[in-house]
Amino acid sequence: MTSVDLNADMGESFGPWVMGQDAELLEVITSANVACGMHAGDWDVMAATMARAVETGTGIGAHPGFPDLQGFGRRRMQIAGRSLGNLVAYQLGAAQAMAAAAGGRVRHLKLHGALANICSEDEALARAAYEGALSVDPDIIIMVLAATRQQSAVEALGCRWAGEIFADRAYNDNATLVDRSLPGAVIHDPEFAARRMVEMVKAGAIITESGKHIPTAVDTICLHGDGKTALQIARAVRGALAGADISLEVFPGRTGAF
Amino acid sequence: MTSVDLNADMGESFGPWVMGQDAELLEVITSANVACGMHAGDWDVMAATMARAVETGTGIGAHPGFPDLQGFGRRRMQIAGRSLGNLVAYQLGAAQAMAAAAGGRVRHLKLHGALANICSEDEALARAAYEGALSVDPDIIIMVLAATRQQSAVEALGCRWAGEIFADRAYNDNATLVDRSLPGAVIHDPEFAARRMVEMVKAGAIITESGKHIPTAVDTICLHGDGKTALQIARAVRGALAGADISLEVFPGRTGAF
Amino acid sequence: MTSVDLNADMGESFGPWVMGQDAELLEVITSANVACGMHAGDWDVMAATMARAVETGTGIGAHPGFPDLQGFGRRRMQIAGRSLGNLVAYQLGAAQAMAAAAGGRVRHLKLHGALANICSEDEALARAAYEGALSVDPDIIIMVLAATRQQSAVEALGCRWAGEIFADRAYNDNATLVDRSLPGAVIHDPEFAARRMVEMVKAGAIITESGKHIPTAVDTICLHGDGKTALQIARAVRGALAGADISLEVFPGRTGAF
Amino acid sequence: MTSVDLNADMGESFGPWVMGQDAELLEVITSANVACGMHAGDWDVMAATMARAVETGTGIGAHPGFPDLQGFGRRRMQIAGRSLGNLVAYQLGAAQAMAAAAGGRVRHLKLHGALANICSEDEALARAAYEGALSVDPDIIIMVLAATRQQSAVEALGCRWAGEIFADRAYNDNATLVDRSLPGAVIHDPEFAARRMVEMVKAGAIITESGKHIPTAVDTICLHGDGKTALQIARAVRGALAGADISLEVFPGRTGAF
Repeated sequence: MTSVDLNADMGESFGPWVMGQDAELLEVITSANVACGMHAGDWDVMAATMARAVETGTGIGAHPGFPDLQGFGRRRMQIAGRSLGNLVAYQLGAAQAMAAAAGGRVRHLKLHGALANICSEDEALARAAYEGALSVDPDIIIMVLAATRQQSAVEALGCRWAGEIFADRAYNDNATLVDRSLPGAVIHDPEFAARRMVEMVKAGAIITESGKHIPTAVDTICLHGDGKTALQIARAVRGALAGADISLEVFPGRTGAF
Repeated sequence: MTSVDLNADMGESFGPWVMGQDAELLEVITSANVACGMHAGDWDVMAATMARAVETGTGIGAHPGFPDLQGFGRRRMQIAGRSLGNLVAYQLGAAQAMAAAAGGRVRHLKLHGALANICSEDEALARAAYEGALSVDPDIIIMVLAATRQQSAVEALGCRWAGEIFADRAYNDNATLVDRSLPGAVIHDPEFAARRMVEMVKAGAIITESGKHIPTAVDTICLHGDGKTALQIARAVRGALAGADISLEVFPGRTGAF
Repeated sequence: MTSVDLNADMGESFGPWVMGQDAELLEVITSANVACGMHAGDWDVMAATMARAVETGTGIGAHPGFPDLQGFGRRRMQIAGRSLGNLVAYQLGAAQAMAAAAGGRVRHLKLHGALANICSEDEALARAAYEGALSVDPDIIIMVLAATRQQSAVEALGCRWAGEIFADRAYNDNATLVDRSLPGAVIHDPEFAARRMVEMVKAGAIITESGKHIPTAVDTICLHGDGKTALQIARAVRGALAGADISLEVFPGRTGAF
Repeated sequence: MTSVDLNADMGESFGPWVMGQDAELLEVITSANVACGMHAGDWDVMAATMARAVETGTGIGAHPGFPDLQGFGRRRMQIAGRSLGNLVAYQLGAAQAMAAAAGGRVRHLKLHGALANICSEDEALARAAYEGALSVDPDIIIMVLAATRQQSAVEALGCRWAGEIFADRAYNDNATLVDRSLPGAVIHDPEFAARRMVEMVKAGAIITESGKHIPTAVDTICLHGDGKTALQIARAVRGALAGADISLEVFPGRTGAF
C-alpha cells in the first residue's frame, strides 16, 4: 500500500507573539518542523511545541533558519559554508534538547525560508548545511525539496533523506515552483489541491502546470497553517489521500540516489 | 592521592569581537565552561572552542547564561522557573551539538554570571535551572558554587554534581564571597592565591578571610582568563598543586549530600 | 471646560508577528505610545505606526522598554542609571526619526512594562531614565504613572509632564494598583470602567477601591488594545467622557509639583 | 588652499567587547563614522563615542549597517528598498539622539560594510537608503564611495554629499577596488599610502594601479583603526598631507553632479 507523510512548520510564535494554528494542524499532519529560535520560536515556544508533538505522536523535525527574527528568515543572507554548518548544528542541538526534555526525539531536519531557497539552488551550500546536521546526528533524515539541489546534496552525501512536494504551489516543467507573482502559482482551492496531491503520490512524480510528469521521491507533502484556506487545504488533502487508500505515515527515510 | 579539577570559562568571543586567552588557559585547566550563544559565544565561536577542547582533552561543560549579549549575562533578569528550565535546556542542547560535531561530549554544566548569582541565593530557581538540564541529560554533572543554594539544589535533586571554589576571591565566614568593593576581596597575587588553593584542597574546606574552615566539596577550582594577573594566577595555582602532590584531573562528579 | 487625554500603546508588532488593534484604537485615543524596537516594534512597524498616527492627528509618544523581545520588556532587568539614560535616549532618537520621516514629531515619552514598574518604585532610576530623554529633547513631555515615584522624579526635574491613570485597574488606598491576582483588580465591565473614569476626571483624583479620593494630575487615561473587552472599554470611556462634557484633547503638559 | 577630510569608523565595541583604537584615531581624523547599534555599537558605546567626538571637535556621522551583530554587518542581506530606508532612518535617529545628549550633532551619514557594498553597485537601493536618511534630516551630508552608484544616487537626489577615497586600497581602472585576494590590493606601507593620498588629493582624482587618473570628488579619505599598520598609515597620511600644504578640515559637503 502506498504511503505518504504530511508535514507542516510549527512553533513559529515568539515571546508574546502568536503565529500559526499549530493545534489544528497537529490533527492533520504526521511530521512537524519545529522552528529553532533563530528566525522564530524561542525556548518556551519550543518546549510547548515539542510537548504537543510528543502527545500527538507526530514525527519531530528541527527547522533551522537564518538568524533574522525581524525578517522571519525569509531574507537571503550571505554565509560561508563552514559557518552555515555550525549554524545548522547549533539549532539542531537546541531542538534535540527541547525534544528530549519533552520525552521526544528529533528524527528529521528541514531548512527554513531563504536558507532553504538558497540551498535548493546551490548544492555546495546545501551540503555544508547538511554536513553540519550529520556531524551532530549521522542518522537524522534530511527532508529535501524534491528534484532540487537539496536532493543532489543528500544523494551525494549518502545520508538518509525524504523528498517533499508542495500541496499549494504550482510547478514549472523544470521542477521549480511557479513564481508567486504569476496567476495560478499559489493554489487556494482545497478540492483542486487535494486531487492534485493524490495524483502526484500515485504517480510518484511532480506533475507540472503543463501536465508533465517528473518522477521523484514523493515522501512527504508540505502543508501550511497560514493563508485563508490553508487549513481547509490541509484537511482536504488528508481526506482525499485517505479516500484513495494512501496510508498517512511518518516517512521512514531513504538513502542513495532516487 | 588527593585530586582536584581546574575550570575556566571559554568561548566568550562573539562575531568579530575576541575575548579571553583561551589557548593559554587550555594549557592550565582540566575543564572548560563553554558559553552557549545567549550572553556570549556564537555557533562559530562554539565550534572552534569545542574543537580546541577536544584536541587538548579538556572536560567540556555547557555554560548557559541570560539572553543578554549587551550585558554579557551579568545583569539580573526576572525569570519564571519554568522558562529558566527551558532556557538552560536550549543552551545545553546547542552545546551538546557543537561538542558532538567536534568529536566531543558535554559532561558538565555551570551557570554563568547573574544567573549563577541568583541561583546561589534562590534554591527554587537553581532547581528549575538544573531540572532543565537534567531533562536533557540525566547524567550531566552540575558544577555548583560550593556551600550555596546551588549546592542545596543538587543535593535535593540527587543528581551528579561537583563543588567549586574560587582561586581569586576572598570568602566571608558564611561562605559567601567578600564584596568586590572591599579591600582584599579580589586576589591579585599569584603566590598567595596558589598557597591558599593548596591549603583549601588539602583541608577539603573553604578557608575564610578570618581563617575559619568551612568543610565543603572542593572538586574544582575556578580560574579566570581576564584581569592583569589572571593567567599568572592560573599557572601558579596549577604549579603549586602539582608541587603539593595533588593530582589535576577532571572531576568524576559526586551524588548525594556532602 | 474640563479636558483629558486618552492614550494607548501602539506599534507592538514585530517582523511577521502582528499584535494589537492599532487601527481601531486610533479612532478612540488622542495620544499614541509607540514601541521603539527593543521590546517590540521594528523600523518597518514604527514607520507604519507613525504614518497612521500622523494621518489621524494623534499625539505621538516614544515608548521605550528593556532590550528584551522574548520577554516583551515585562521582565525586570538590573540596569545602572547611566546606562538606562542612554537606553532611553537611543530609543527616543529612533522614534523621533521615524516620526519625522512620516511628517510628525514625538511630543511625549512613556516608559514600558517592567521598566515603568521599576521607575514607579525607584525615583533615582526614574530620574536617570527621564534625564536620558531630556538630554535629547528638553521640551519633551514625560507621561508618568500618577502619584508614584515617576511623578516625584519629574517634579524634581522641573520638566514638562502629564499624569496618567488606568481605565481598567483598581487602586489601593496608597495609590498603587491592586495586585492582578486579587479579585476586581482588573476591570472588564465597560460601563463600570467608563463611569469610574468620568468620576476620577471630574474629581481630579484617583478613587480607590474603598472610595478614598487621592487628588492627583489626571491628564491622561491609559486604554488597552488587548484583552477581550479592551476595545469596548476604550470606546465606552470615550463615549462617557464626551457625554459628561469632558473635552478629549492631547494633554498640554504641566510643570512643577502637583 | 586645497583641503581634505580624514574619516574613520568608530564606536564599534559592543557590550563587554572592545574593538578599535578610537582614542588614537581621534587625534588623526576630522570626521568619525559612529556605529548605530545594529552591526556594532550599543547605547553605552555610542554615548561614550559621541562624548569623545564632541570633546575633540570631530565631525560626527551616523554609520548604519545591516542588523547582524554576529556578522558585523559584513554579510549581504536581501532587503526591500522601503525597509532599507526605514532601517537607515531608525539608526540615524538613534545616532542623532546620542550625539545631542553629548552636546553634539550628526552632520553626515556613511553606510557600513555589506550595505555600503550593495549600494555602491545598486543605485536604486542606494537611493532608498539615502532617502530614508533625508526624510529625517534633509540637510545631512551623505558620504559616498567616489565614482560608484552611491555617487550617482546622491547626484540624482540633489542632496548634500561628499566623495570618499581609501588610503589603503588599490583601485582598478574602472574605479572599483582591486579584489582583496590579489597582491597589492591592500596597502600596508605607510609611506606609500601617504604619498599616494597626497597625489590623489592634489590631482582631484582616483589614481589607479596602472596610473590612470579618474577625476572625482576627493572630499575625504577613509582611514582604518584595525590592521597591523593601520594607525601608522593614518598618521603618515595626516603628516604627508599637512607637509604638502593641504588643509585638514571637516568636509563642507557639495551638491549636484561632480
